[in-house]
Amino acid sequence: MRILLDVMGGDLPPRELIQGGIAASRNQSIDIVFAGDSLTIETALAGAGERLGERFSIVASTDVVTMDDHPVSAVREKKNSSLVLGLEALRRGEADAFVSPGNTGAVVVGSIFALGRIAAIPRPGLLAVLPTLHGPDVLVIDVGANTDCSPDHLEAFALMGATYAREILGIAQPRLGLLNIGTEETKGNRMAQEAFALLHSSSLGFTGNVEPHHLLTDRPVDVVVCDGFVGNIFLKSIEGGISAVTSLLKKSIIQNAFAKVGALLLKRAFSDVRQVLSYERHGGAPLLGVDGTVVIAHGRSDAEAIESAIDVARRQVDARLVVRFGRGMQGWTRNGG
Amino acid sequence: MRILLDVMGGDLPPRELIQGGIAASRNQSIDIVFAGDSLTIETALAGAGERLGERFSIVASTDVVTMDDHPVSAVREKKNSSLVLGLEALRRGEADAFVSPGNTGAVVVGSIFALGRIAAIPRPGLLAVLPTLHGPDVLVIDVGANTDCSPDHLEAFALMGATYAREILGIAQPRLGLLNIGTEETKGNRMAQEAFALLHSSSLGFTGNVEPHHLLTDRPVDVVVCDGFVGNIFLKSIEGGISAVTSLLKKSIIQNAFAKVGALLLKRAFSDVRQVLSYERHGGAPLLGVDGTVVIAHGRSDAEAIESAIDVARRQVDARLVVRFGRGMQGWTRNGG
Repeated sequence: MRILLDVMGGDLPPRELIQGGIAASRNQSIDIVFAGDSLTIETALAGAGERLGERFSIVASTDVVTMDDHPVSAVREKKNSSLVLGLEALRRGEADAFVSPGNTGAVVVGSIFALGRIAAIPRPGLLAVLPTLHGPDVLVIDVGANTDCSPDHLEAFALMGATYAREILGIAQPRLGLLNIGTEETKGNRMAQEAFALLHSSSLGFTGNVEPHHLLTDRPVDVVVCDGFVGNIFLKSIEGGISAVTSLLKKSIIQNAFAKVGALLLKRAFSDVRQVLSYERHGGAPLLGVDGTVVIAHGRSDAEAIESAIDVARRQVDARLVVRFGRGMQGWTRNGG
Repeated sequence: MRILLDVMGGDLPPRELIQGGIAASRNQSIDIVFAGDSLTIETALAGAGERLGERFSIVASTDVVTMDDHPVSAVREKKNSSLVLGLEALRRGEADAFVSPGNTGAVVVGSIFALGRIAAIPRPGLLAVLPTLHGPDVLVIDVGANTDCSPDHLEAFALMGATYAREILGIAQPRLGLLNIGTEETKGNRMAQEAFALLHSSSLGFTGNVEPHHLLTDRPVDVVVCDGFVGNIFLKSIEGGISAVTSLLKKSIIQNAFAKVGALLLKRAFSDVRQVLSYERHGGAPLLGVDGTVVIAHGRSDAEAIESAIDVARRQVDARLVVRFGRGMQGWTRNGG
């Protein structure tokens, strides 16, 4: 298997991201095509005792899409960026997947431009893999690929989320929920109510509405479906709640001598929290529904996070998810297929 | 001042809520009209050494709107509930404000039915008062009165939020933000983009988009504006993030003997967190834009929370907020009015 890695658009230096690619190649037996500045890549490879060849190759770029770039303009204007050139190499079949820690909007737009969407899927969706306190991760789709959705888009997200849960997480009969502000079917805005009806009549394992406040603690479903605007607000609000508690605990500890002693003893507990709740470490968000395998790693990804994102891409290629999505709702049965 | 208190629809027994009313009357020199079952109220008053008279009176009800009732059906069918009878007493001018810890949707619908909306305000909005780590509370409107909004509704929420910040929180020139998934003005769904343009051209102190993840820690604005569906998702997701961290810390502490010792020492720090972040204790959510003063307390409100909610209502009456809202945008200048 060969995976394209964009090493230019992340928050950390290319050297760090290249280390992630090298580690993935060593640990997962994957060939890596680095998209980025040739000299930087060759230097980093040499520093790690590696060289160009079958295992490591380069798609040379001279431009970079930054985090502040406007997605559509960046993709149109920065034709020599690692992001655009990498996605074009994927379209030409020079690799099996593309992984980037770059500007999320630009990767979404660039993927749709370069790869197109799968015919059976009206809209691609960005999938977040969230850690929970009990049981396996919970999937949320869409968390930001689309800001304006219609109910049939949510049905497509549901199909892709359920397929991902089954094929990648190994959940035989995934339970599906609609993110909403109440559990009754009459709750929510018009879009949520219409999506409820559509999901309810589908053969997907729809169990009803789920509210955000006990999703991570109670884990009522395996897959949560929502429009990309609401999904993105949801993710960032969860993050806001987590950082409020941790900041406040730190502040209180600094002001209190006894608490400082407590904090030392609680170090392991805090480290557990970071370990479980830092969804950034969970390998990035697959962009599902485009005609190719694309994973968007977190902007702050280090080598370890990049290796994890490459693993996420590898598992999608192994499971032939793009082909499965191509069959659409016809290809879906509750017991696999 | 006289305030109506619905003592039937909360999660806790009427006796507990009545205690909150008695405390408010004693500490804030307010007359309380209890809406609820006469015998229960008279018994609770007698138990506290009080009796019916000028300070304490009753609007007798025989029915209760429960948390599971459908809002519109409940308001239509339960004519003898404390919620409906209380709001009708407010409309007749028998008190200055109505406070209820009951079914939020039913209080919203009941208030619109009984009181109507202020002519200058196209849609009422529910205001949440959120604690932050630095500086005063931050206001969020709408957090659930409306599930489908248009940009001019958000402009009305902005006007009411800014007025509330100035008159109740004493912030001379409130800074206003639009809840969105990015800071650039091109971000968000169509509604958010149109609301941005409208707010930008208004005389309100609009500073741009704000993202949810650093709202409580950085407090970039005084007032956050959003549609009620998104606002409700935001609130519940913040709550979800907070409860995930605290559950996880507890779990980790139980598994670790040393951490248990640390936890004892950290007790004060945890108590600080609860104190600051339990927005439920902040006195409930004012429903702004109906033609009367209505405060919706949290369902789990105890006596202390009820007293706090009554205080929130009292301050709105003192500031004559309903009259100020009646002037609409014409009544708004940046430096008071």
